[in-house]
Amino acid sequence: MAESGRVLSEIATHIGATVRGDPTLRIYGLNTLKDARVGELSFFANSAYRDQLAQTSAAAVILAASDASHFAGHALIASDAYVAYARATALFDTTPPAETGVHPSAVIHPTATVAASAAIGAHVTVGAGASIGERVVLGPGTSIGANSVVGADCRIAANVTIYHGVRIGAGVVIHGGAVLGADGFGFANDGGRWVKIHQLGGVIIGDGVEIGACTTIDRGALGDTVIEAGVILDNHVQIGHNVHLGENTAMAAYAAIAGSTTVGKNCIFAGQSGAVGHVSICDNVIAHARCTLSKSITRPGAYSADLLMDETPQWRRNAARFRHLDELVRRVKKLENKIGDES
Amino acid sequence: MAESGRVLSEIATHIGATVRGDPTLRIYGLNTLKDARVGELSFFANSAYRDQLAQTSAAAVILAASDASHFAGHALIASDAYVAYARATALFDTTPPAETGVHPSAVIHPTATVAASAAIGAHVTVGAGASIGERVVLGPGTSIGANSVVGADCRIAANVTIYHGVRIGAGVVIHGGAVLGADGFGFANDGGRWVKIHQLGGVIIGDGVEIGACTTIDRGALGDTVIEAGVILDNHVQIGHNVHLGENTAMAAYAAIAGSTTVGKNCIFAGQSGAVGHVSICDNVIAHARCTLSKSITRPGAYSADLLMDETPQWRRNAARFRHLDELVRRVKKLENKIGDES
Amino acid sequence: MAESGRVLSEIATHIGATVRGDPTLRIYGLNTLKDARVGELSFFANSAYRDQLAQTSAAAVILAASDASHFAGHALIASDAYVAYARATALFDTTPPAETGVHPSAVIHPTATVAASAAIGAHVTVGAGASIGERVVLGPGTSIGANSVVGADCRIAANVTIYHGVRIGAGVVIHGGAVLGADGFGFANDGGRWVKIHQLGGVIIGDGVEIGACTTIDRGALGDTVIEAGVILDNHVQIGHNVHLGENTAMAAYAAIAGSTTVGKNCIFAGQSGAVGHVSICDNVIAHARCTLSKSITRPGAYSADLLMDETPQWRRNAARFRHLDELVRRVKKLENKIGDES
Repeated sequence: MAESGRVLSEIATHIGATVRGDPTLRIYGLNTLKDARVGELSFFANSAYRDQLAQTSAAAVILAASDASHFAGHALIASDAYVAYARATALFDTTPPAETGVHPSAVIHPTATVAASAAIGAHVTVGAGASIGERVVLGPGTSIGANSVVGADCRIAANVTIYHGVRIGAGVVIHGGAVLGADGFGFANDGGRWVKIHQLGGVIIGDGVEIGACTTIDRGALGDTVIEAGVILDNHVQIGHNVHLGENTAMAAYAAIAGSTTVGKNCIFAGQSGAVGHVSICDNVIAHARCTLSKSITRPGAYSADLLMDETPQWRRNAARFRHLDELVRRVKKLENKIGDES
Repeated sequence: MAESGRVLSEIATHIGATVRGDPTLRIYGLNTLKDARVGELSFFANSAYRDQLAQTSAAAVILAASDASHFAGHALIASDAYVAYARATALFDTTPPAETGVHPSAVIHPTATVAASAAIGAHVTVGAGASIGERVVLGPGTSIGANSVVGADCRIAANVTIYHGVRIGAGVVIHGGAVLGADGFGFANDGGRWVKIHQLGGVIIGDGVEIGACTTIDRGALGDTVIEAGVILDNHVQIGHNVHLGENTAMAAYAAIAGSTTVGKNCIFAGQSGAVGHVSICDNVIAHARCTLSKSITRPGAYSADLLMDETPQWRRNAARFRHLDELVRRVKKLENKIGDES
Repeated sequence: MAESGRVLSEIATHIGATVRGDPTLRIYGLNTLKDARVGELSFFANSAYRDQLAQTSAAAVILAASDASHFAGHALIASDAYVAYARATALFDTTPPAETGVHPSAVIHPTATVAASAAIGAHVTVGAGASIGERVVLGPGTSIGANSVVGADCRIAANVTIYHGVRIGAGVVIHGGAVLGADGFGFANDGGRWVKIHQLGGVIIGDGVEIGACTTIDRGALGDTVIEAGVILDNHVQIGHNVHLGENTAMAAYAAIAGSTTVGKNCIFAGQSGAVGHVSICDNVIAHARCTLSKSITRPGAYSADLLMDETPQWRRNAARFRHLDELVRRVKKLENKIGDES
């Protein structure tokens, strides 16, 4: 518990670090180097903060062996101080524990299965044939559709909507307002009118995936939309029907993948970036902010399309010129021809 | 039922096609040419897949008369194979049927009206004076505000929020997490402080509209926000107060129309495109991805503003130059003047 | 009540205006100059509508003293007609009043505190130790997490998700589907796999803040995310962990502030604009649509990055040239060198 604290040796074991100093020192919380107070543990993972390391009031600091000489106090020496800090946060999480059992106001279909160790919140709905695994937490107002499966140790927040036929692996975290399994955006145009293409597939979510608030993952049109293990999605992300996201790919807010596109492993999509539909993105691609990957990518690396901000008056002048860029190129070509003739 | 399948003749009647081959052939599902297995129906609507047509394991294929000679098996001949496929999907939809009646946990205000054939899910709230039409489905946790009207055959998913004074036509589909009738973003600035403009209008949704997950349609400030029949909106779309969207206009994810703008019929807004407020967009306009329609459009056609992606190092060089584009034009002008003088 | 109307003198007192004409004239609603009918009050705040002022059927008009001579009818003379109109809307709001008390279907934890004057809707959940202030309205399906505080006079709509440890000031408006206090997007990369950084901070919302539908405000990683008094956020806004937004800053739809960035007072973020993480934006900055503030801003003023729309064929020509802009600059430089040599 954060209340009674943790001793350094215990933290070291959890995060894979070694103690330098007093292993029985008791830690009551985590904080930045700058804000840490007595009894708090901090971390040093960015050399820009070397001054703060020297001046911190932290009781102890997580740092790499190569930085250990820059700090005289109690320390946890780790191979990667930032990863070690990330692991330490789990010990100090203050999220209130959910109450095991099914809240009396929850509505569980008689044909659904709910593990005895699960914590089903108030006003939850679990549909026919659905299955809720061991130690799952379902927040208030969340709805699990018919025949959907929620694997062990998932934590699903309040007011999440899971449609029917969605299969979620183990240890998945889903934040408030997220929607999994809504219809993909599929319509055929019949002389101006849109004819709905009913979306017959499902959604498969791998183990350990994290899904942000108000993020949407559409069900497949034919076949499933697939999110592989270890993927992390920020808030307001949109995953179209029949997309396939490879392991450990990360997508920041508003990043979007259009229908039927396959994304490789360990890709990073910055805010408001994305990919068009029906293309294939290889492993280890970075899409910078507001960049649309507009065709298949076969070469790992970073791609960009956003422009740099400028003060508006200066910007206006340049943007107006952009509308005549093709003409400008022709003018330069003409000059080159003339000069070439002359020289 | 998908379980027991449908015979070709029945499907042909439903989709307006003619059978070539055995009209009693039983079909158990739909799939792509590539993935179709025994007993499944597929479709051929894109000549890029001609090879797949030759090699498909599908039991039958929907295709146009002009393509019929390229496939030897059972076929459904349709004037538009893609539209015919769209119609066929309705026959194989596996969405579990909702249970008719009002779930005991739903809270229906005594002054509200709910049709006997409607299916009201768990934890639904229907406010004072609201009206729910025949065969309407309201998913778990959905809230219908006071005096709102939901027309016949609407399918509203879980955790949808409909405010008061929202009038929804017949056959409208609304996905999870959508919000209709929230206040438009209207404030007057009083010496630095914002004074709220209470939003006194409502929302009107025409027949057959589809609204995606986490999409928001704000109520009017004075007068109503209007979405005409046949409009289709993807996930995360934003419709500002007093917007008027014409029939059959389609908007992809994150497309947004700012307040008081009128959009014509049969327009298409690609992902993250949009229009500024207080303008008028004519019929048959296409806004490509990330293009803001920044003034009224009177000429049908396509508009763009997004740039093409590039590998980041090359991109950086060009983007840096963009900030001096106006200066570049002046330099070229100067050269032209000199050369003109000389020649 | 809007039903029985309000007399001009009463409205004048509420909005800080003076009556010209009959102070007992009864007003039944508000409308635009163009659409106003008998019995309705309108306003004139934009000289572009001078023709409409001359022709309006409004019973009375709010306008500035300097415009009073352009209108012959009953008038409310105000120093700022638009602000006065904004204040008047509060008198004609038709939002149905919420019923005081706790709805029987709501689930209130025994250790939570709910003011007697609060109106708690159906299917609401209030967690352990939470506190709901006087006259608060909580819409159906809304969930308030453990130990969160909702100040007096807040109006929170349906299906809103408030996590644990969120402190909301007085008079805050939160629209449907909004999510406050979800985990910030924090992960450390451990050889390709993402290690979650548990988010240990909270969220603090100042007095009078307005938060749009499907807007998300993440909890802090260490320390709190802070939204100061008077901030207004449109729909689909994203506020990352440990962001600090200064008083009266306004953000339109899809505007986003990445983690740990500080934004000053009275800033305006247009639609889809934003700021990167770990920077500081001074007071009185305007970010135009789709502009990412990519570094700290110390000079008040307007910033842009979006391009102007063009018809697609013309656009394509210019966009293609952009990919060779650096090369073009080099070509111009070469020409300048040659010409310089010659002249």
